[in-house]
Amino acid sequence: MGVDSGGSFTKIVYFRPKSAPDLPDYVFKDQELPKQLPGLKPDPSIDIINKGTLKFIRIPRHKSDEFIHFVGETKLHSQFNIECLNITGGGAFRLAPNLQKKLNITVEPLGETDMLVAGLSYLLEYDCSNEVYTVDPVTKEKTFGVFKNVNEIYPFILVNVGSGVSILKISGKDEFERVSGSTVGGGTFWALCRLLTGATSYDQVQKLSESGDSKNVDLHVGDIYGFDSSAPGYHKLGLSPDIIASSFGKIAVQEELPDLRPGDVVRSLMFMMANNISQIAYLIAQLQKVDRIIFAGGFLADNVYLLSRISYALHYWTDAKMKPYFLRHDGYLGALGAMLHKSNNNNKPTNKE
Amino acid sequence: MGVDSGGSFTKIVYFRPKSAPDLPDYVFKDQELPKQLPGLKPDPSIDIINKGTLKFIRIPRHKSDEFIHFVGETKLHSQFNIECLNITGGGAFRLAPNLQKKLNITVEPLGETDMLVAGLSYLLEYDCSNEVYTVDPVTKEKTFGVFKNVNEIYPFILVNVGSGVSILKISGKDEFERVSGSTVGGGTFWALCRLLTGATSYDQVQKLSESGDSKNVDLHVGDIYGFDSSAPGYHKLGLSPDIIASSFGKIAVQEELPDLRPGDVVRSLMFMMANNISQIAYLIAQLQKVDRIIFAGGFLADNVYLLSRISYALHYWTDAKMKPYFLRHDGYLGALGAMLHKSNNNNKPTNKE
Repeated sequence: MGVDSGGSFTKIVYFRPKSAPDLPDYVFKDQELPKQLPGLKPDPSIDIINKGTLKFIRIPRHKSDEFIHFVGETKLHSQFNIECLNITGGGAFRLAPNLQKKLNITVEPLGETDMLVAGLSYLLEYDCSNEVYTVDPVTKEKTFGVFKNVNEIYPFILVNVGSGVSILKISGKDEFERVSGSTVGGGTFWALCRLLTGATSYDQVQKLSESGDSKNVDLHVGDIYGFDSSAPGYHKLGLSPDIIASSFGKIAVQEELPDLRPGDVVRSLMFMMANNISQIAYLIAQLQKVDRIIFAGGFLADNVYLLSRISYALHYWTDAKMKPYFLRHDGYLGALGAMLHKSNNNNKPTNKE
Repeated sequence: MGVDSGGSFTKIVYFRPKSAPDLPDYVFKDQELPKQLPGLKPDPSIDIINKGTLKFIRIPRHKSDEFIHFVGETKLHSQFNIECLNITGGGAFRLAPNLQKKLNITVEPLGETDMLVAGLSYLLEYDCSNEVYTVDPVTKEKTFGVFKNVNEIYPFILVNVGSGVSILKISGKDEFERVSGSTVGGGTFWALCRLLTGATSYDQVQKLSESGDSKNVDLHVGDIYGFDSSAPGYHKLGLSPDIIASSFGKIAVQEELPDLRPGDVVRSLMFMMANNISQIAYLIAQLQKVDRIIFAGGFLADNVYLLSRISYALHYWTDAKMKPYFLRHDGYLGALGAMLHKSNNNNKPTNKE
């Protein structure tokens, strides 16, 4: 079992062997966990051929204490024959003593980036073709199978968008360096969404983004130069009228503060995030002389609209020369890396290759 | 006379010859203009030795129509013996016909970037040593005289922060290319300040920034890993506890939305802007193999706290290898370039060199 205590979610990856005896009735089975704890989300599992299944679950950060209490009370963890719980993520070193006491097991806090890369390396080696996908900037369609073999993907830039953004250069299996980062990350997006739209859940934000129009909030090149791109001035400018000139710029230039539609605000924030992260990632990829960028992290999870905007932005910045890549098990890299760590871990699956 | 119709201000640069006859009493003299129009700001002038004085004034964008009416009514412009008014900036092509009709003179709209660079080239050639300065990241002290000769400064990256951000590479006098830009600019900052703090003027925002503390809003590395940098985990991380991990991240992780202090929000936004613009500028400078970056644009005007944060950020990103440079006549580059344009302009000062 591996745990990743992140800024927004605690992610858990565990291996359920095929031959495992059914848990007795009085213990909550893993398939039933979601019903017990609202907010706990089950995510896609991986079948490890002939061995069992990797399960991926996550719990909102503010429910983490409740979940630890639940596990302690139900002795759920004892079903996994765990001697040592591997925990990573920002909260790992802070939480370890408390966990150790409450669950009465050894807890090993592990470095976040090491585990992130270990988990990613495992997934890429295990089944690259079904792990990595692209998203069409217009149709939002996902395409898998872009890499048939793991060797086709190294070296690459990993942009991990959590509360903040970490940017790593990954040159090969478990071979990496942190090259940059940004403070404009998922935490910024979520905080500004809450403050500006009153949204109380991330699902609500996703729903809002479906109907918004950022044109009511963002200042476009056409708002400044006029929308007739054949007009004088445009030729020298070299920018199209429908390009955003200033995020939230339309709010800035109005004498009276207008009423804001929450969907418009969410879209504007999404565009701002997607443009900014893509630009920084692309500049770093150029400096590192790397052609491929994988975007990952809890902020991106399940938000296909956001992914399409990153595709759109990278298409723009790179003159269509680069596509961003995304991961099916995005958000669980650290937890998986923690699970796989060291030999004293039980139930470690072996690589199919 | 040159005019730059920008997103927030209309900037005017004009040349007052030393030998000019005093204007008759019934005409408002330039020194008295500020009293006539609240919001019109006089800025530092340049004495062109033995020839006269360059004057720099600006008017809030929403007062521009009032000012045009005022000039038309008072026939102020006829005192300057102007046959053709050169106007640049985003609004130039849109405003030209209206101006031409109301003031009954030929109005020539000019490309924004050309004029920006022409104005900058003039200022650098005229008196590089008194034009370019640095700001200490801690004491906020300005230092002039960093470049004695204009040739020491080329090539450089110009980061022009208006409503949005334009990034140019300037290789020599009037020799430039637009290399990038960002939608996260002054418009974004001002809009978010208005929406989150209720501030109604930029002066108010500057005042708020003096007392705020971004620690109440931003998530720092120490908030995640603990503030004891000798604790396990820090060694591998390579980041200091007092580095911002996520702008506004502290708002994101709290279950209940806290009450926000406006000063804290303004500081957090300033840090976010300064970090982000500096990072993008530095990455581009590296890609362009250029050692010097000048930051300019209306967004920076007079805000020494913001300038010190850009100094701090560039110090951080470049490991103290680079300092940002700022301009005394920041914000007037385009208007000055427009004034200097073409030979049919009256009262064009000649270069002292």
